[in-house]
Formats: sequence, C-alpha cells, structure tokens
Amino acid sequence: MFTMVLYKRLMANPTGAGVGRPLVDKYGAMVKAGAKAFLVEEYKWLFVFVVVLGLILLLLFTIEDQTTKSDGVRTAFAFFLGAALSAAAGWLGMMVATDGNTRTTAACAGKEVVDAKTGEVTGTGTLNDGLRVAFTAGAVMGFVVVGLGLLGVGSAFLVVAVNYSKAEALQVLAGFGFGASSIALFARVAGGIYTKAADVGADLVGKVEAGIDEDDPHNPAVIADNVGDNVGDVAGMGADLFESYVGSIIAAATLAPRDCEVALPFWLAGAGVLASLIGTFAVSTKEKGEGWNSNLGALMWALEKGTFLAGATFLGLAAACCHYLGGLWGSYLCVIIGLATGVVIGKLTEYFTSFDFAPVQSIKARGSTGPATVVIQGLGVGMLSCVPTIFVLVAAILGCAAIKGEYGIAIAAVGMLATLGITLATDAYGPVADNAGGLAEMDPAIPDSVRQITDSLDALGNTTAATGKGFAIGSAVLTSLSLLAAFKNQAGLDDAQLAITDPYVLSGALFGAMLPYMFAALTMISVGKAAAEIICEVRDQFHNRPDLVAADGKTTLRDCIMMASNGEKIPPEMDVAPDSNKCVEISTRSSVREMVAPGAYAILAPLFVGFLVGPACLVGMLSGAICSGAMVAIMMSNAGGAWDNSKKFCEKDGTKGLSKKKNADGSHKFPAKKAHYDACVVGDTVGDPFKDTSGPALNILIKLMSMVSLTVAPLLKAYHKNWDHYHWGFIPFGLFVIVTYALVKNNILTWQDPIQALLEKGADQADEETGALLPPKEVELPEKTGPEQVAVVA
Amino acid sequence: MFTMVLYKRLMANPTGAGVGRPLVDKYGAMVKAGAKAFLVEEYKWLFVFVVVLGLILLLLFTIEDQTTKSDGVRTAFAFFLGAALSAAAGWLGMMVATDGNTRTTAACAGKEVVDAKTGEVTGTGTLNDGLRVAFTAGAVMGFVVVGLGLLGVGSAFLVVAVNYSKAEALQVLAGFGFGASSIALFARVAGGIYTKAADVGADLVGKVEAGIDEDDPHNPAVIADNVGDNVGDVAGMGADLFESYVGSIIAAATLAPRDCEVALPFWLAGAGVLASLIGTFAVSTKEKGEGWNSNLGALMWALEKGTFLAGATFLGLAAACCHYLGGLWGSYLCVIIGLATGVVIGKLTEYFTSFDFAPVQSIKARGSTGPATVVIQGLGVGMLSCVPTIFVLVAAILGCAAIKGEYGIAIAAVGMLATLGITLATDAYGPVADNAGGLAEMDPAIPDSVRQITDSLDALGNTTAATGKGFAIGSAVLTSLSLLAAFKNQAGLDDAQLAITDPYVLSGALFGAMLPYMFAALTMISVGKAAAEIICEVRDQFHNRPDLVAADGKTTLRDCIMMASNGEKIPPEMDVAPDSNKCVEISTRSSVREMVAPGAYAILAPLFVGFLVGPACLVGMLSGAICSGAMVAIMMSNAGGAWDNSKKFCEKDGTKGLSKKKNADGSHKFPAKKAHYDACVVGDTVGDPFKDTSGPALNILIKLMSMVSLTVAPLLKAYHKNWDHYHWGFIPFGLFVIVTYALVKNNILTWQDPIQALLEKGADQADEETGALLPPKEVELPEKTGPEQVAVVA
Repeated sequence: MFTMVLYKRLMANPTGAGVGRPLVDKYGAMVKAGAKAFLVEEYKWLFVFVVVLGLILLLLFTIEDQTTKSDGVRTAFAFFLGAALSAAAGWLGMMVATDGNTRTTAACAGKEVVDAKTGEVTGTGTLNDGLRVAFTAGAVMGFVVVGLGLLGVGSAFLVVAVNYSKAEALQVLAGFGFGASSIALFARVAGGIYTKAADVGADLVGKVEAGIDEDDPHNPAVIADNVGDNVGDVAGMGADLFESYVGSIIAAATLAPRDCEVALPFWLAGAGVLASLIGTFAVSTKEKGEGWNSNLGALMWALEKGTFLAGATFLGLAAACCHYLGGLWGSYLCVIIGLATGVVIGKLTEYFTSFDFAPVQSIKARGSTGPATVVIQGLGVGMLSCVPTIFVLVAAILGCAAIKGEYGIAIAAVGMLATLGITLATDAYGPVADNAGGLAEMDPAIPDSVRQITDSLDALGNTTAATGKGFAIGSAVLTSLSLLAAFKNQAGLDDAQLAITDPYVLSGALFGAMLPYMFAALTMISVGKAAAEIICEVRDQFHNRPDLVAADGKTTLRDCIMMASNGEKIPPEMDVAPDSNKCVEISTRSSVREMVAPGAYAILAPLFVGFLVGPACLVGMLSGAICSGAMVAIMMSNAGGAWDNSKKFCEKDGTKGLSKKKNADGSHKFPAKKAHYDACVVGDTVGDPFKDTSGPALNILIKLMSMVSLTVAPLLKAYHKNWDHYHWGFIPFGLFVIVTYALVKNNILTWQDPIQALLEKGADQADEETGALLPPKEVELPEKTGPEQVAVVA
Repeated sequence: MFTMVLYKRLMANPTGAGVGRPLVDKYGAMVKAGAKAFLVEEYKWLFVFVVVLGLILLLLFTIEDQTTKSDGVRTAFAFFLGAALSAAAGWLGMMVATDGNTRTTAACAGKEVVDAKTGEVTGTGTLNDGLRVAFTAGAVMGFVVVGLGLLGVGSAFLVVAVNYSKAEALQVLAGFGFGASSIALFARVAGGIYTKAADVGADLVGKVEAGIDEDDPHNPAVIADNVGDNVGDVAGMGADLFESYVGSIIAAATLAPRDCEVALPFWLAGAGVLASLIGTFAVSTKEKGEGWNSNLGALMWALEKGTFLAGATFLGLAAACCHYLGGLWGSYLCVIIGLATGVVIGKLTEYFTSFDFAPVQSIKARGSTGPATVVIQGLGVGMLSCVPTIFVLVAAILGCAAIKGEYGIAIAAVGMLATLGITLATDAYGPVADNAGGLAEMDPAIPDSVRQITDSLDALGNTTAATGKGFAIGSAVLTSLSLLAAFKNQAGLDDAQLAITDPYVLSGALFGAMLPYMFAALTMISVGKAAAEIICEVRDQFHNRPDLVAADGKTTLRDCIMMASNGEKIPPEMDVAPDSNKCVEISTRSSVREMVAPGAYAILAPLFVGFLVGPACLVGMLSGAICSGAMVAIMMSNAGGAWDNSKKFCEKDGTKGLSKKKNADGSHKFPAKKAHYDACVVGDTVGDPFKDTSGPALNILIKLMSMVSLTVAPLLKAYHKNWDHYHWGFIPFGLFVIVTYALVKNNILTWQDPIQALLEKGADQADEETGALLPPKEVELPEKTGPEQVAVVA
C-alpha cells in the first residue's frame, strides 16, 4: 500500500523529456531494457532450476518414510512461494530503480536556466531534489522487499500450518527460506559478475586504451555498465537482504521455546516496517552539490536522520510488543543488542573504507612505491577490518546467549534487520545515484553544474553502499548462526555428538572453511573471463565494424572515437551509435553461464557432506563455513571499498589532476604523480570483484548452505552415526561430478584466459593494420593514447 | 655424530679462495657476519622474553593449588630447554648454511679454464658438484634440527619423568613444546620481515630506480638481501619444522592410550632419522646447468630419489617398530597415511606453483590486461589451491580417526614428519643455492657459464621451497589438531561441553578464525614499513654520501652507480664499497621491532580467552584458528609461489627479453611485452610477503596457540563453566592493553607510511638537485632510467 503511494510519488517526478533532456530518457530506456533482458534470461534458467529442485523436494519428502503427512507438497509449495517472491522482489526493485535513474537526473538538472549576463548555463534542480527522488526510488525498493518478505513468510506459515502442529509447520517453512536463498544466490552471483565484467570491460578499452570519457555513449559497453549497477547492486542486494530478513524470522520462530516467542519475530518485523515508514519522511538536505568536495558528513546526516528516527521509533514499538506478548524483556534486550550491533558494524565499515580516516589514506600513501604496495596495504586494511568487526559480533553473540541462549541470537538478528525498509532504501539509493550520474554524463548538453550535483549524490552513495555491505555481512552471520542452531534442533542432534574436537566435526569444519575460498575464487575468476569477452567485443566494434556509420553515410564509429578522444565536438549528423545491445547480450550470457558452477556447488556441498558422512560432520561444515566465510566477506568488501576510495582520495587531493598534466612534447609533467595515481587505479580494479562480486556472494553462500541443511533436516534426523547414510551421499556427489564434467567440457571451468585464446588465434588472422583482437600495443588509436596506455596497463 | 661427519665433508670443500675467487669469500663473510648480527640481536630480545615467561610459568605452576608437586620447576625447565634447543638449531643451521653458500659457488665455478682457441673463460665446476655441496649444507641443517629435536624431547621427557607418573610427565613436557614454539614464532616472523624488507628495498631502488643489476655489490642493501635469505628461509623454516617435529611427538605421546603407544612416536622418529641418513646418499645428478632452461624434471628427480629412498626405508623400519611394540598395525596404517599425505600435498603445491602447469601459466596470461588482472588471478589460484589440499587433509583425518581416533591423527603427523631430516635438507638447499647464485653475481670475474649453473640450482631451489611450504602447512595442521585433542584431554573437558553449536564455542571459533587475518595483516604491513626504511637509506647512500669514495679519492658511490647502470666496467681503483652494514643494521632493528606485536598477541590470545571466558571457548578459538589459519596459509604460500613463477615464466618464454629491447630513441620496442612483464613483476612483489612472511608465520601461529593452551591446561582444569575464572583473564587482557599502548606510542603500530612521513618532511628540506628522500621522479639518475622507472613503478 504505502509502497504504491511512494511509487506514485516517484513516478510523478518528471523524466528527462519533462525538463527538455530527451537523450537522458533514451539512454535510460536502454538501461531499463538491458536490465529487463538480463532478468528475463536469468529467470528462464532459474525457472527450470527451481522447478526441478522443487520436484526433488516433493519427491524426497513424500517417499521418505518418517514423513507420513503431506510434508512433500507443503515443502514444495513453500519452496516455490519463497523463490517466486524473491524473484518478484528483484524484478520490482529493478524496475523502480531504473525508473528512478532518469527521474533523479531530471531532478538534478531541472529546467535549463541561462544566465543573461555571462551566458552560463545552469539548471533549476537542486541537490535536495535529486536526493529526494533517488531516496524515494530506494525506499520503494526497500518496502517492496520487506513487504513481500513479511507478507510472504507470514502467509506461507499460515498456509502450511493448516492441520499441522506449530513445530511441523515451522520445519516446512524452511522450504520458503530455501527458495528465497537459491534465487538470492544466483541473483547475487550473476548480477555481481555482470556488473563488474561490464565495468572492467568498458573502462579498460574505453578509458584506458582509447582515452574517451568513462561514460561516453560511443563506448558500446557503457549501457551494459549501467545495467550492471542495477542488476548487481539493486537486484542483488535486495535478494540478499530479502533472504536475511526471511531467514532471521524463520530461525527465530523455529528456536522459540514458547508460543509467544514464536509470534515475537513476526510482530517485531511488523513494528520495524512501521518505524521505517516514519523514518522515510525525515530524509532531506539543504546542502549544495559540489562534486567530491561537498560536505559528505552533512549529506550523510541527511540520510542518517531517517535511520535514527526509524531506530528510535522501532525500539518504542518493540517495547510495546514485548510487553504485550507477556513481558519478554530478555528478548527486548537482545533486540537492542542486535540493532546496536548493526549500527556499530556500519560505523566500523565506514572507518575502514572512507577516505576521511587513516586506513584509506594509508593505502593512498603507499601509491608512491607502486601498485604492489597499494595492493598489499589494501589487503592488510581489509584483514585488519575483521578484528573490530568480529569483536563486536562476538560480544553481541555472547551477550545474547547469556540472556536468552540460541533464541536470543536469532532475535538479535531479527532486531538488526527489522528496520530493513529504511536501511535498504539507503543502500539502494547508491546505485540509483550512480546511474543518474552516468546518464548525466552521457548527455553532452547537460551543464557541469548539474554533474557536480550528481557527483555529490554519487559520493554519498559510495559511503552508504559500503556501510550497507557491512550491515549485510553482520546480519548474514547472525542469521546463519541461528539457522545452524535451528538445524541442530530439527535434526535432533545432541551436544555430545557435536564436540568440536570430534574428528568428524573438525574435518567438517576444515572442509567448510575451505568452501568460501573456492566460491570466492570461482566468482573472481569468472569476472575476469566475462570481462575479457566484453573487451574483445568493444575492440572489435571500434575497429572492425564498417556497418556502424552515421547518418551522413561515411563517418564510422572509429572516427567518432578518435574525435571524442581528441575532445572534439561531434556534430549530430556525424554521430554514430554503437551496438550496445551486443554488449548487453554478451554480459547477460556470460554472467548467467558463470553463475552455474558456484551456485551448484553451494547447494550440493551440504547435501554431499550431510548424507555421505553424517549430520555431525555437516554441522561442523556449516560452522567452519560461517566463520571462514565471514572473514573472507569482511576482508573482501572492506578492502574493495578502501581501494575504491583511495582512488577517489586521489581525485579529491589533486593527485589525479596533476597526474594528467602534460608537457608540450606530450610527456607527463608530473610522472611521479601519474605513477601514484595509476597505482591506486590498480588497487581499485583488484577491489572491484572483491567488493561487488565475491564478497557479497559469500553472505548468501553461508545463509544458503544453512538453509539447505535446515530444509533437509528431517531427512537426516534418523541418521545420527557417521557413514549411516552414505549411499544417499552418492547422489549429490554424482551430480557434483556430472556438473563439473559438463562445465569443464564446455570450457566454463578452465584456466584458459579468453583473451589469450583470441590472441593466439589472432596472431595468424588479425589484420595488422586495424589490429583488432590484438593487445593494446597494436591498437592504432590517436597518438595521445600511446604513452598513457602503456603506463596505465603496466 | 653423523651430522659432524657431514659437516666435515662440507667444510672440506674449497671456498672461493681455493678456486681463485677471493671476492666470493669476502662477500660470503659479510653475509655471515650480517646473519650473526641479526641472530645476536634477536636472541638478546628473546633471552629476556624467555626468562620472563619461564619465571611466570614457574610461579603460576607453583602457586596454583592443584599442583602440589614440583610442576613449576619442571615446566620451567622444559620450557627453557625447548627454547634453548630451538635457538641452537636456528644458530647452527644458519652457520652451516652461510658456510655452504661460498662453497657452493666455489664448487660451481671450479678452477678457471681458458679455451686456448676462442679465449672463452669457463670453469671446471659442474652442476653435480654444486648440487652436492648445496645439498650437503642443507642436510647438515636438517640433521641438526631432527637431532636436537629428538634428543631434546627425549631427554626432557626422561628428566621430568623422574618421580612422576607418565601422564604427569607428559603434561610437563608441553612446556618443552611451548619453549620451542615461542622461539620459532619470533624467528619466523622476524626472519620473514627481514628477508622481504631487504629484498623489496634492494630491488625497488637498485633494479627499478637506478637500473643496476639485482645483485650488484654497489647496492648497499644487497648484503642484507642475502642475509635475509638465510635468516628467513633457513633459520625460520628450521625453527618452524623443529616445532612441528617436537609438537607431533608430544601430542602423540600425550594422546596415547597405552604405554607401548607412548613409545611409538619416539621409535618412529628414530627410524625416520636413520632412513633419512640412507636417503641422503642417493642425491646426485648428471644434468648440465643451463639456467632457466635446464631440465628441471631431471634435476628434481635428483633430489626426489633421496626422499623416496628415505620414505621406503622408513616404512620398512616403521613396520619393524610396530611389530616389536606389540603389533600396532592400526598405527602403522596411520603412519602410511601421514607419509602419503605429505607427499601428495607437496605434489599439489608443485602443481599450483610451478610454471609447467596451467595455474601459473594462467596468471602469466593475465599479464596482457595489466597488473590488476594478474593480482586477481593469482589470488584466485591461491584460493583454489585450498580445495584439493583440504580434500586430501580431510580424507587423511577421517581415515586416521576411523582407524585409531585422535591418537591416529597424531601418529599420522609423526609419520609425515619422521623423514624430516631429508625433507628439510631439500628445503634448506634452496636458500643455499639462491645465495650461491647471488655471490656468483657479485664477483664480476666469474664467467657466465658458472652463473648458468647457479641459476639452474636456484630454479630447482624455488620448486623445493614451494613444496616445502606445502609440507610445512600440512604438518602444522595435523600437529595442531593433535595438540588440540591433547588439550581437551589434559583440561578434562568432555564432549557435551564442546558442542560447536554452543554459543560460547561458536563465538570462540569466530574469534579464532579472525586471528590469522590479524596476524597476516600485521606481518604484511610490517614488511612494507621495514622496506620503506631500507629504501630511504639506499637512496640516501646513492646521493648524499660524499664520504663514500674510491681509493682514488674522488669517485663517489653515485658515480659508480651511474657507470654500473650504463653497463660500463669499473676499474678497481675507482670502485666504491657502499655502507652495507648500515642496511643490515636497519633490517635487523626494524624486523626485531616489528616482531613484537604479532608475537605478543599470539601468546596472549589463548590466555585471554581461556581465562576470561573459559576452556570451552578456548577450544572453539583454537579450532577456528586452525581452520581459518590453514586456509590463509595455503592461499598465501601458493599464491605467492605462483606469482613468483609466473614472473619466472616470462623470463623463460622470452617475454622478459623482448620487454627490454629498445628502439634507437630509447623508447621500448615492444611496449605491450614490457607492460606484460611489468604486470607480472607487480604480482611477484605482492606475493613476496605472502609466501615468505605472512603465510609461513601462520603455521607457527596455530601450533603456538595450541601449545600455549596445552601448557596451561592444568591451570584451566578446575574451571569448566564459562566466566568461572574471569578475573584471571584480566591479566593477559591488561598485558594486551599495555603492549598495544606501548606499540602505538612508539609508532610501531601505525597506519603511517615511513616513506610518506619522510616525503612530507623532505618537501621542505631535501635538496632539489640531489633529490634524496624524494620520490623516484626527482631522482636524477642517467636518462635511460627515465621511461623505465615510470612504467615499472606504475
């Protein structure tokens, strides 16, 4: 309901056409179409996957003799519902975000104003207008997620509880979480690979090799890059937190010792939605847009006001709930701990990733000795950021455990996630602002003052994105710990079987600790491979496509690029549109293809260990994966964010500006500054897949594996000794072998670098003159790129 | 005994003077003196530390009421003995290795031979001569370690067992392991920081900025670099494996259910020493030295022959032991599993780090898109290398547990380490060969054919070093798992208290999983800081030291560097010796200073958690640290090795050669090749602290923390509930605060980059003309370095 109101308010804002910027609408529509195309392709695959998996669940729970009731049908129903709602949340969020992009740009631009005296062109748009529109788009997304999550899990519970005891119904409800998790995993992985492959591909050929602007519309990968921001950061983040939100409610309800405590997580979630609504109204700012130099603290406060108001309101409402449900004051304390932990982890993330503080500054400082020291320092910062974060998490866990045991931890997770509506609004605001900036860049007629405004919004978005990632990890750890405890209960394991010193549990822990590494490595390498395909395509379009010509019938894309890189203005009749759809298509195809391996392994691993060795080993595996996965996720997200901002710090403190100054002979005026900036760029590129692909995907990995285990817990229940059930284990193992074989056979799991393969082929075939498919050296673009390209690639 | 014979045989080889190469002796002596100076400085600090810690142990175990006997005296005695023997092993090994360096160079060179027709100068030395001498030096080191280890732990056991029951004596024996571990930790950390700081410092200023050869004796950091190879790879590796060796014996004896099983590890260790002796004789080769192009497989086989012979002999002897001790055939199976696991892990490490296989080749291929993709691919390879390694380890653990439970795992560790004599000989051979190559480079009169031989030896050494690291990690994991089980027994904990789902155990695991990250980050950042100091000193010597003049009274070091970088020959009367001692001093001081923080935290963490929260949480912490530490260690060691060899692969396939070709105008002929090679160099530099500092130190971290816990187990015994003992926990916590405060106060724990601080100071003070203390740009060296330096640093 409220979501609809917000959405109407968003749609009431003028688009580009409304303020005389039709180009913004055109590119915005292309981004939207690309995002849709990606989701359609992804959902096609997922539909098959979900149907097959749902049928397997139906079968398993129906034939398994301990489950004489209609467990199969109910579990499959819950699974389908969870998957469908998660997919719907992703789809709706994305649509809103892509609508929000153009409207944010339009709001920042406003009507064109020409200063009568100086002739300077500015707009009537203000920073506050842009912030409000972008935040509204984020808020729609946030409320879609929490609305669907709360309604979905609530109604699923009511449906499956018909004729079932509460305990039985809660067990079946795990299927809902499983459905949501599997969609989330694939959305996060495919979206993460998409966004970074397009980003890296667009930058390497466009910015580095050809020397055109980052968002120059002549670059065929630019649209894909903008689509990527939406599919990765909006849809991916939404699905991730949808899963945490649903998972924490299910875990808390399952662990609840009494009926009133089963109700509490649902009540709290409802209270959180109300509180978030109230908080939404408090977001606004009076600051002016001044690009990177604007007062980020004040801007941040504009968003934080809303979060704090929502938090305070929530605490009041939660107290009322706890009182009404029979004085659950212990649980209330846990809620406070959870909420506080979320805030503190967000602040810690900000400390380690914002250029206002020493860690990021130390990375930038290392640039004077080259990229290697930047990389080392960045990894060091990422690793050290685990220390305080884990201290806080451990303190929260110990505190909640002392108050209410395992239920306390689950309730803390619910408390942390209750105000997700506004937290997610703040997160989703980031990519909307980022895209709005991209659209502003693409329209050459938009004046610089407007870009300053979108840059300010973007800078703020970077900070909220970083804190959002910290929050996502913290909540994922608490949620999956609760799911682990729920699994232990549902599988009927007792403490003595689960001693960590037991060799089976310990082997499980060792095995589990390895999984996040495998997962992170696979996704990281996938980004590289997908990016390589984009690079080849863009190079090909720049050089080998005589069919891409302007209205005048003779200007080619290559000519346009040369003009653009020399800073010349291109007259409309000579302008050439690149084949952006091809890049969108490639990104879509390769990211969907690359999501298969990590996704399949994540689902198969717990089944394999649980059935082959036994539930005790599985518990060990889950705990090992949670501990190790939390570290890798924190390290990767924070290191990536810190590298990104150390590069931004170079822009702010002038290193970047000086690095571009040249002498008359074309050599660099300040080679040390240039080397310094280039070193920071290397760190940023390493950090891209860290923070946007592998790191966030790990959150889902640990939740998904716990959710899979919880769902199949009844099947494992009767088998408490190790190796009891080993013949069942051969099924997931066989699937593992088949999937791996298919992937290797189709050259998806390979050490081969696509670029290298093309190079080797190209060495015989490629035309020496156009040099397409060959490395930068042979690309004969305007001379100015000569020295630059060597050093940047170096 | 046998060690003495080997040592005599080594010393019987001629030194440089014996083959007419006095310069080799001179530089060799400088390296030896530097190594001694480092050890003296390090041992001074460690002496104070060990005495204080020993007294604390004496006090604790004497006043603690449960220990009415002379536990205090005995534990302190065992602790001192362990520390003293570990230190002695490091000292002796280092002395032998430094003696071995010069003799290896001399053996490779042989007498000078001048071809009468062509006038070409070659030597009578052969690859086999060099291999034999270097391996003999390694063997002396290996047998010193196992000899001291076996004798030490055996005699300590006999002494502390007087009037004690076996169980009591074994508990006290943990003190021996603690002593050995603490020395090992500091040796590994300080040595690791030393070696990489000197290496990076020497390379960045000498090779990159000034353009002189890697081992040019005019670079004041070259001696420190060579010293580093000895203190890091010889002394550090020796102390590490000494600890594993001793630890596995202690753990197995403690876990043994029957008396004959207590004896078994000692017998096995004895059998292993004998078998290693026999294997030593089989090492030789008929291959010719052909630099990087030599047949590495055949060379490797020369060393492997010995290892396999030793393994086979050991299996025979072990069978005899098991038969004699009453048919312990279950344990025999575990021994076989342990030995096989060690071999397989070594082979896996070779697969991931040798340039004969796809992983390293894939890293090299990524060089065509720049350093960022090289870094990402390298991390990916490192992470993926965890997958099969952990599979093998988990299979071994599950197998041994099924056969003999926890004792089986401990015996597998003993089996893996039994033939340490020859394994360590192969490992220690590497740095000896590396140093021999360095010495050959330093003497300009040594012909190229000799350098080809030393290069071949060095290439082989890189492979053995990598496999050695894999072996060290595998054995560390098995040893610390056994120590963990021993701790559980000694602290009298039962399974139900240790359920991994218990929030206390799980928080411990989360906390423990974080520790390796903190430790790795601290050591990695330390390398950067120590290297920065070296860089500043070398720059200063190159530019600001008019007192460093040649015999002719006017040629300065600066002039020599300019001549050397232009490839001119320097006449002896104009030759200037740099102030190498200063660099040795700086490396020593900074590495010893930087070892304090990680060392102190490693010892305090288990005490803090064990006393403050309780032994169950401590068990969780140890298991978390073992699982997470194993992954980080495998990832770092293998990624580092893979990057190193991807750079070597560039040398082998010609990329490096082409990258150096220039056009007449000084520009690069193949800029893409140059960019490609430079990208791989960045990967190598990132990998240096990975593989030689942080990665290996993690092995010790996990063993040391387990050993500390095992030693204090009796003190924790009476306190089984959480928070029981919390007031004691404030002591380690207080120490933690004090140490941290002192470190921050003295600017040792800081985000500040020393170079940055100097730069800021330098901006006002530094002389614009000489440009000392300023970044590369302002260093006015010969023009030829201009373009090179920018791109390499970039």
